[in-house]
Amino acid sequence: MQKVVLAYSGGLDTTFCALHLSKDLGYEVHAVLVNTGGFSEEELKSIESRAKSLGIASFTILDVVDTYYQQVLKYLTFGNVLKNGTYPLSVSAERILQAKSLADYAKSIGAKAVAHGSTGAGNDQVRFDMIFQTIIPDIEIITPIRDLKLSRQEEIEYLKKHGVEMNFEKAAYSINKGIWGTSVGGKETLSSLGYLPEEAWPTQITEKDAKEVKLTFVQGELKGIDNEVFDNPVDAIQKLQEIAGPFGIGRDIHVGDTIIGIKGRVGFEAAAPIIIIKAHQLLEKHTLTKWQLFWKNQQAEFYGNHLHEGHYLDPVMRNLEAFLQSTQEYVSGDVFVRLDVKHFTLLGIASEHDLMASKFGSYGEMNKGYTAEDVKGFTRILGNQTAIFHQVNQQEND
Amino acid sequence: MQKVVLAYSGGLDTTFCALHLSKDLGYEVHAVLVNTGGFSEEELKSIESRAKSLGIASFTILDVVDTYYQQVLKYLTFGNVLKNGTYPLSVSAERILQAKSLADYAKSIGAKAVAHGSTGAGNDQVRFDMIFQTIIPDIEIITPIRDLKLSRQEEIEYLKKHGVEMNFEKAAYSINKGIWGTSVGGKETLSSLGYLPEEAWPTQITEKDAKEVKLTFVQGELKGIDNEVFDNPVDAIQKLQEIAGPFGIGRDIHVGDTIIGIKGRVGFEAAAPIIIIKAHQLLEKHTLTKWQLFWKNQQAEFYGNHLHEGHYLDPVMRNLEAFLQSTQEYVSGDVFVRLDVKHFTLLGIASEHDLMASKFGSYGEMNKGYTAEDVKGFTRILGNQTAIFHQVNQQEND
Amino acid sequence: MQKVVLAYSGGLDTTFCALHLSKDLGYEVHAVLVNTGGFSEEELKSIESRAKSLGIASFTILDVVDTYYQQVLKYLTFGNVLKNGTYPLSVSAERILQAKSLADYAKSIGAKAVAHGSTGAGNDQVRFDMIFQTIIPDIEIITPIRDLKLSRQEEIEYLKKHGVEMNFEKAAYSINKGIWGTSVGGKETLSSLGYLPEEAWPTQITEKDAKEVKLTFVQGELKGIDNEVFDNPVDAIQKLQEIAGPFGIGRDIHVGDTIIGIKGRVGFEAAAPIIIIKAHQLLEKHTLTKWQLFWKNQQAEFYGNHLHEGHYLDPVMRNLEAFLQSTQEYVSGDVFVRLDVKHFTLLGIASEHDLMASKFGSYGEMNKGYTAEDVKGFTRILGNQTAIFHQVNQQEND
Amino acid sequence: MQKVVLAYSGGLDTTFCALHLSKDLGYEVHAVLVNTGGFSEEELKSIESRAKSLGIASFTILDVVDTYYQQVLKYLTFGNVLKNGTYPLSVSAERILQAKSLADYAKSIGAKAVAHGSTGAGNDQVRFDMIFQTIIPDIEIITPIRDLKLSRQEEIEYLKKHGVEMNFEKAAYSINKGIWGTSVGGKETLSSLGYLPEEAWPTQITEKDAKEVKLTFVQGELKGIDNEVFDNPVDAIQKLQEIAGPFGIGRDIHVGDTIIGIKGRVGFEAAAPIIIIKAHQLLEKHTLTKWQLFWKNQQAEFYGNHLHEGHYLDPVMRNLEAFLQSTQEYVSGDVFVRLDVKHFTLLGIASEHDLMASKFGSYGEMNKGYTAEDVKGFTRILGNQTAIFHQVNQQEND
Repeated sequence: MQKVVLAYSGGLDTTFCALHLSKDLGYEVHAVLVNTGGFSEEELKSIESRAKSLGIASFTILDVVDTYYQQVLKYLTFGNVLKNGTYPLSVSAERILQAKSLADYAKSIGAKAVAHGSTGAGNDQVRFDMIFQTIIPDIEIITPIRDLKLSRQEEIEYLKKHGVEMNFEKAAYSINKGIWGTSVGGKETLSSLGYLPEEAWPTQITEKDAKEVKLTFVQGELKGIDNEVFDNPVDAIQKLQEIAGPFGIGRDIHVGDTIIGIKGRVGFEAAAPIIIIKAHQLLEKHTLTKWQLFWKNQQAEFYGNHLHEGHYLDPVMRNLEAFLQSTQEYVSGDVFVRLDVKHFTLLGIASEHDLMASKFGSYGEMNKGYTAEDVKGFTRILGNQTAIFHQVNQQEND
Repeated sequence: MQKVVLAYSGGLDTTFCALHLSKDLGYEVHAVLVNTGGFSEEELKSIESRAKSLGIASFTILDVVDTYYQQVLKYLTFGNVLKNGTYPLSVSAERILQAKSLADYAKSIGAKAVAHGSTGAGNDQVRFDMIFQTIIPDIEIITPIRDLKLSRQEEIEYLKKHGVEMNFEKAAYSINKGIWGTSVGGKETLSSLGYLPEEAWPTQITEKDAKEVKLTFVQGELKGIDNEVFDNPVDAIQKLQEIAGPFGIGRDIHVGDTIIGIKGRVGFEAAAPIIIIKAHQLLEKHTLTKWQLFWKNQQAEFYGNHLHEGHYLDPVMRNLEAFLQSTQEYVSGDVFVRLDVKHFTLLGIASEHDLMASKFGSYGEMNKGYTAEDVKGFTRILGNQTAIFHQVNQQEND
Repeated sequence: MQKVVLAYSGGLDTTFCALHLSKDLGYEVHAVLVNTGGFSEEELKSIESRAKSLGIASFTILDVVDTYYQQVLKYLTFGNVLKNGTYPLSVSAERILQAKSLADYAKSIGAKAVAHGSTGAGNDQVRFDMIFQTIIPDIEIITPIRDLKLSRQEEIEYLKKHGVEMNFEKAAYSINKGIWGTSVGGKETLSSLGYLPEEAWPTQITEKDAKEVKLTFVQGELKGIDNEVFDNPVDAIQKLQEIAGPFGIGRDIHVGDTIIGIKGRVGFEAAAPIIIIKAHQLLEKHTLTKWQLFWKNQQAEFYGNHLHEGHYLDPVMRNLEAFLQSTQEYVSGDVFVRLDVKHFTLLGIASEHDLMASKFGSYGEMNKGYTAEDVKGFTRILGNQTAIFHQVNQQEND
Repeated sequence: MQKVVLAYSGGLDTTFCALHLSKDLGYEVHAVLVNTGGFSEEELKSIESRAKSLGIASFTILDVVDTYYQQVLKYLTFGNVLKNGTYPLSVSAERILQAKSLADYAKSIGAKAVAHGSTGAGNDQVRFDMIFQTIIPDIEIITPIRDLKLSRQEEIEYLKKHGVEMNFEKAAYSINKGIWGTSVGGKETLSSLGYLPEEAWPTQITEKDAKEVKLTFVQGELKGIDNEVFDNPVDAIQKLQEIAGPFGIGRDIHVGDTIIGIKGRVGFEAAAPIIIIKAHQLLEKHTLTKWQLFWKNQQAEFYGNHLHEGHYLDPVMRNLEAFLQSTQEYVSGDVFVRLDVKHFTLLGIASEHDLMASKFGSYGEMNKGYTAEDVKGFTRILGNQTAIFHQVNQQEND
């Protein structure tokens, strides 16, 4: 029997896939759940027990949250990447790592095929296929949901017929949770107008009083919160999420271009990612030069878009990462943040690499490094070309 | 007697300049206040009466708020310009228009000199000088404060000696108010850490309950609020400021690169500008294509920086404006916003130019315009080059 | 009978299509040749006579060379667009206009289908389809060569069977001629190494002695050659091609990324386009400011790539054109060029908009507009941030 | 006596400086010639003997050509940097390294001052001062020529008075030679129109017959010519210059923006740099993906401009270098070039990293990796957003 590796999440679609691949297509099914930080121990156990009940050959959990951070999230932080100015790419980033991990696993067990439960209507199918066709070009890709175009009801009947027992009720809101944020889709996000109701948000607001936190960055990475040191930034992210999530911070609706050309809308909550990015960005304003800031923005926007569209393996991404990494050498220091219900305030920073260090003069106060005459000369030369332009072309100009 | 045009604000520095220019330098002083929307009728009257008490040749108020909008603010809106991701360029933008207006006025009355009260330590001196040397290269620029380097106390004594009576007490916070926001400097903004206290903000919070507003944009310009139509976006901006200001929205601290190379920090409140830019940006996400969004961001960042640094008259600015203007053809529609204390939420949009229109398929639902096979083919070709790259270079890669 | 509009070039593939569409698919075939400047009167007559011999419903020549210039070539000139630094997009640009013209024609005669002879292996299929699906989404696209995958021999047999007489011999080099250059493909361009032999180039070298020409640009457009004034730049381009072509100027091999992800190589000769672009660029170096030059390059590269890939109708192209148009206001003057066998030299320019005008100082000579002290001050301030950076981070730096 | 380090070239200006610094200002003069590859053994000896005749404390030659390559030229090659599309930055690049070397030397000997012979009219003063004020902020910068504003005649008289014997005749053309090209200024380059006469070029044309060379690149660096292997790319550059120089290749006139805002024009010959950059660029077209090519161009243009303007020590330059370095991993292979009098032709490449490898399909031939149906689906999705845009906005569009 030939082996197929199935990306398994425990939901209706991938449960259908598991049975269909073994019963109808005769594969030896190896179900794999790639955990990028979105599952609790309890959820994992429940998924495992369902998987095992399906009579498949194996069920494996790949915990890739550290790799996910090292290969993707680190650079999203360095680049302050918020797609369209808002969305930390919670889902897009995750899919990349999941696909890579599945491809490597498929190779390692000698699978002939790899299967995922994407429909034909979203971004994920493109992300999975792009990664697979690049890393494992000789392994067949099977996408039963996309190909069979079954209705939800047909899938349920198929599963019932094969004796699968699970909760078949459709949730009012579809949730995708990961370490870099949780997406929330519902009827309000299907059209251009409509905001998610309070109860739709996975993390409910339980905090009421403002709280201050100190975030410590070391070369661009979050390594400390309130004097607690974290060797692994993953732990720091999770800790910050615990602290800030109950404030309802980082909720928004992302409107963006799908890879397939239509516009889509999805709610998300991402307290830790949003705070980290904004705090990191403030630290950069203090420690980087103006052209570093400019070029980081120009490139990071493309980096985020290209990642979103599944082009993670284009070598230009490695080149942009080399750039981003290089910019972080002195992005170290503390950022002070006040958390409040549904919003937060950046209070300031402390860093030995702060270019605002007052020994070089404070803004608005005369500086020891230069004189008024220097500035006059500076301005005369700085504006020289524009002045010449206006003199040369003045008849037309006035 | 030769004429000098003095940029007059009614403060200590420009009051000193007025006297110094006439008494010490023998000029016929024509004081000009360029109003870009930051003065109330009452304030204007008080400034006028002080000016006239100084025995100068003339005092003129140039109301340029419409020109300011047409020549600068319109493009800052089109470009969603927030310097370093936060600051709407409240002061920088204003200075440009003030300098241009002063230069034109100086030319019109045949002045031999133009004077401003900038010190040698800030951005404004560069902005004023750059504009002056370009538009009126043959008119001398006089900057008594920068050149004489007098202390505050010396200025006060000079004024007292000449019988000037005014409030010589230094305010705890220096305020610069204009239609595009109010800057607030104080002891907290002099170092990298420290946030302005509640009482420092010019607009105190008096609203407590959330309120929804509908903003109507026509080709990128704010032309309506809650069904009230405004011919002149300037009126809409002022109306929105009245509504949103008392929520304490749009307060933040800007950290940025001054033109002279040091980092500076300044508080600001700008409820209307921030809401307008964020609402406009959301409308663009629905009505522009992904590459329009990409290129707008790339260019608008430079546009904002170049403006900030006083390069408004570089012809590249006209070229970038032509680009920005061209992008706004279909940026029309309503944006729904919920105002809350210290934050606001974008609820969604309604526009006949919305590219998310559901007749072209909803995200996550199968689309009539293409099939699953189309997407498979799409993905295969889209990822072709990256796949080839990995096959060609695979030995090194694995 | 339903009408189909066929893009007809007189070659084997489209001759096959004409017969196939009428005999096998039962269409009323309206053959259309879109002339973008690549056909002589004689060639057009010969194609017309063949077309009419095929028993089709109509044959129409659309002469769109002026539109082609106004809608595409003008902007390629403004942007100095050379794909990958070499190729003036001779073919890519042409296809866009051909597709647009065909689509408009199909709409105008109420066609139910539109057909083109592209194979499944090149760029043209994508360009045609992209334009068609955008402008005429309700009209079916038929591509017999792509779909039937016939060999050359099969096509020939089909044509012979239907009594078509034409030269069935395959040319050693496939040529595509247009006003913006002629592409040449042959066995040497199929691999990464190999240059076209002398005899493969459509224009043979007949000039031996260097010749000087003066090109006059008005707002970025070529309007004069050696004191002959051309109202229509199209005539100027053709005249320059006549003059410069026989020098063998503008020959090269383009290596580039096809839309479908593989790398391709094609020879081309484009004397007039290359000379125009280089001369225009030189004039811009004299008349534009440094940031105009910078942003023109950044955007023009994308403009060329996006056009190459068939995205002409993406509205971002109109926005970039607005930018480019705006930059040309003062790009007027004469450029002096020396033509020589296989190369040319730009000798210099004369323009009343020349920013190098010596009254503002010559490079290397002391300038009246500023003093040595000014430059010292300028430098001190210009380098201020970098100096601060090195002082702040110096322990790590040294 | 306090030490001054003088950048000494053996010319009139720096000879004057040497005497002036010791005789008039009482410094202990340490003359330093920083050799970046532009001096023959003979020239160095002659300069040394003049220097020693001036009674200075020491004369030192710093041979920094390898460092120059490693710190600057390598990246100019990686980025294919040609300022304004023509000029390899022959002089600008050199000055940076000279200034850095002088600063380090001044620090090492405990000098109190550093002196250079720049006038107040050019780029070099800015480059020297920017580097000095960053690396050696506490060491005084002395620029006698700029400050004293002496005429050539006055300098000559001063030198004669002090018994200096040298050739005081002014050369018709001022030459600056380095490993990355030789600049040539003369009366023809002072205005916008005029080309250098044959005799003005330092390297006269002695080759007449075309010659082919094979250039071997390893990770972006020139490491071989015609099967001769060079460990040090510096040797390969010099060898290629010897081969190609006598063809008169790489001559042109650069028109550009000086740092001080005026436009300047200078002739240059740079056979090796131009051939290397064009050959390297061709190799990249075969080995990099399209987005790598795009981003390299965007950044390299800025890198070149920023270097030209003396901002080498801005940390953004290190970040851009990290990017450029990262792109070169697979830029290895042979490039075949035909040299001819005053021009050259790139014949093709051979590389195991060639993405045009025919096993992935040849352009224009059907590819095994995808089908015609794939391309149709690809095109449908690729053009989806533009098609939607046109449908949504169609009434206004037609």
